[in-house]
Amino acid sequence: MKVKYTLLHQDKNCKARYGTLETNYGTYELPIFMPVGTQATVKTLDIRDVKEINSAVILSNTYHLWLRPGEDIVNKAGGLHKFMNYDGPILTDSGGFQVFSLAKPKDISEEGVKFKSHINGEKLFLTPEKSIEIQNKLDSDIAMSFDECPPASATYEYMKNSVERTLRWAKRGKDVFNNPRQSLFGIVQGGYYKDLRKFSAEETVKIGFDGYAVGGVANDRESKEDMYKAIDYSIPYLPEDKPRYLMGVGEPVDIFEAVERGIDMLDCVLPTRLARHGHAFTKDGKINIKNAKYKEDFTPIDKECDCECCKHYTKAYIRHLIIAEETLGQRLLSIHNLRFLISIAENIRKSIKEDKFLDYKKEFLDRYNKVNK
Amino acid sequence: MKVKYTLLHQDKNCKARYGTLETNYGTYELPIFMPVGTQATVKTLDIRDVKEINSAVILSNTYHLWLRPGEDIVNKAGGLHKFMNYDGPILTDSGGFQVFSLAKPKDISEEGVKFKSHINGEKLFLTPEKSIEIQNKLDSDIAMSFDECPPASATYEYMKNSVERTLRWAKRGKDVFNNPRQSLFGIVQGGYYKDLRKFSAEETVKIGFDGYAVGGVANDRESKEDMYKAIDYSIPYLPEDKPRYLMGVGEPVDIFEAVERGIDMLDCVLPTRLARHGHAFTKDGKINIKNAKYKEDFTPIDKECDCECCKHYTKAYIRHLIIAEETLGQRLLSIHNLRFLISIAENIRKSIKEDKFLDYKKEFLDRYNKVNK
Repeated sequence: MKVKYTLLHQDKNCKARYGTLETNYGTYELPIFMPVGTQATVKTLDIRDVKEINSAVILSNTYHLWLRPGEDIVNKAGGLHKFMNYDGPILTDSGGFQVFSLAKPKDISEEGVKFKSHINGEKLFLTPEKSIEIQNKLDSDIAMSFDECPPASATYEYMKNSVERTLRWAKRGKDVFNNPRQSLFGIVQGGYYKDLRKFSAEETVKIGFDGYAVGGVANDRESKEDMYKAIDYSIPYLPEDKPRYLMGVGEPVDIFEAVERGIDMLDCVLPTRLARHGHAFTKDGKINIKNAKYKEDFTPIDKECDCECCKHYTKAYIRHLIIAEETLGQRLLSIHNLRFLISIAENIRKSIKEDKFLDYKKEFLDRYNKVNK
Repeated sequence: MKVKYTLLHQDKNCKARYGTLETNYGTYELPIFMPVGTQATVKTLDIRDVKEINSAVILSNTYHLWLRPGEDIVNKAGGLHKFMNYDGPILTDSGGFQVFSLAKPKDISEEGVKFKSHINGEKLFLTPEKSIEIQNKLDSDIAMSFDECPPASATYEYMKNSVERTLRWAKRGKDVFNNPRQSLFGIVQGGYYKDLRKFSAEETVKIGFDGYAVGGVANDRESKEDMYKAIDYSIPYLPEDKPRYLMGVGEPVDIFEAVERGIDMLDCVLPTRLARHGHAFTKDGKINIKNAKYKEDFTPIDKECDCECCKHYTKAYIRHLIIAEETLGQRLLSIHNLRFLISIAENIRKSIKEDKFLDYKKEFLDRYNKVNK
């Protein structure tokens, strides 16, 4: 089935909205934070972990799965859900972001993008049609249009041409799209140019998609303010009855700022990446578990947290695991960091329903920023 | 409490014995295979995994915990059980094996062993008293005497002197031992010399311990036959009413050969180390999951296995995880390999009670060796 968004309540003090998303795997409340499972696994977690942190939609990366193990193997397994044993909704990105960030192509044409595999240097060619074909075979619940992600430093001229090409690519992708149980989202680009964001949003909506993403803000932007502007420039032109997804953003403050502007879905590798380097979110800011002050700290990372990490293990133990390079340490911190962001989203949903989103935002960020500053 | 072994049944066709071991954390049936948690974690597993594979006793390494995080931190945490959140019996080795295998000391004196840390090259000195003091603080359920582990190539003269010194070390360790809820095991050495094994066993028993280990067979022996001989040379001189532990051995065939000779407990890093390299035990022999033939094999590693890996994941998926260097792959194979050996031990216990140990051994090994040869 196509995902179906229902707007249930808008906070009376801002654009933050509470709604539901019907999917092939049940109905979920939005806004949500979505864990990233790049290579058909949320790094270091198993599927029980993914469920226990109360994930709704999880992400997987088309580019990575195309290269390894290949979309045909995933398809023969019965699709991505069966392959990785996840009976919840999965969103696949288009590969565009990875092609531009990992593979750094030099050859972008109307037809598509030539680049080299980041694994073995093999020459590859990705087109809008190919991206959709791969995603159709992966059989995710939500597929994304193939787009160009130009750097923030791109000139107006370059960005305008890029936005126009991305629109043609979006149309081409939609034309070959061929999986009845999958939804297709369009992506708004345009950098930090107000008129290009408006143009991109309006034209993308004209093509018509099951949901809309705001893209191009996760790479080399100059400031968070730029990102917030890009959201502000895009949202007014998106339909109220479709979900809105901000791609690749996951700092707590950004989740609040995005939701305040009308975003329903966010994803980011940040929580698992931070975990692998020994960093943990807490209500009083980020901590580095390797810090000597946790050597004999036999309390959990967050006493109020309900994750498996905080219920069973202490800072001193996790510090030992991270320093001794034991993968359990990375996994426990990944579970905690993901649960931390997901529980923020849970609290955000509650606060919107009570028209108290801005109060919750202030309360959370005041405490979160206090210690770190 | 001191562990208490009760012999309940001896197979009428060989020396294999079935019994129980009372511990601080309940009573367990023997023989058992014990997973190794070197740095206070069974590599890649969490404590729920450890319980789900039906572990009884698990091992941890004194040498590693002495270096990181240090025995005082573990002690302040409330002991190793609380530190790692395991409410089951833990055995700590003495550090002797690691000092000789990892740190390769050149300076062994009557007093102890000077060597360099394998982590940072720091000069360290380990004595029998220090090993026991560390283990007392770690507060494991079973501590091991500090012993020298000479190479198999040692001359008779060297081995004789070493055995005598290890006996003096055992006595010194017992004299300072000071933890009422901990048991202390002695270790029989003597290489592959029949009279030295006899001498070592008899003299170790005279000192008097809560259990006895056969040591010195896990390093550079020339053949499996040598190892079996070393067991045969030692067992007759060990008391029937104490548990017998073969240190560092875990190939399936060796578990059978050891139990047949009267061994009750075994441990080995093999199952988790194999897993990290993509190898899995199956009833038809070991497999390398990276093999191309598993690319599209959507069946579990072992259809009859009841582990979390085999219940939920396929060979094709695990192959993908291992090749993509995702730690979930290592963890799933570790869970499976440990469960494989633990379930062999479960079947062994059942077979001994029915006087059918030799039948089960033949049935298992005939199938296990068939494909690989």
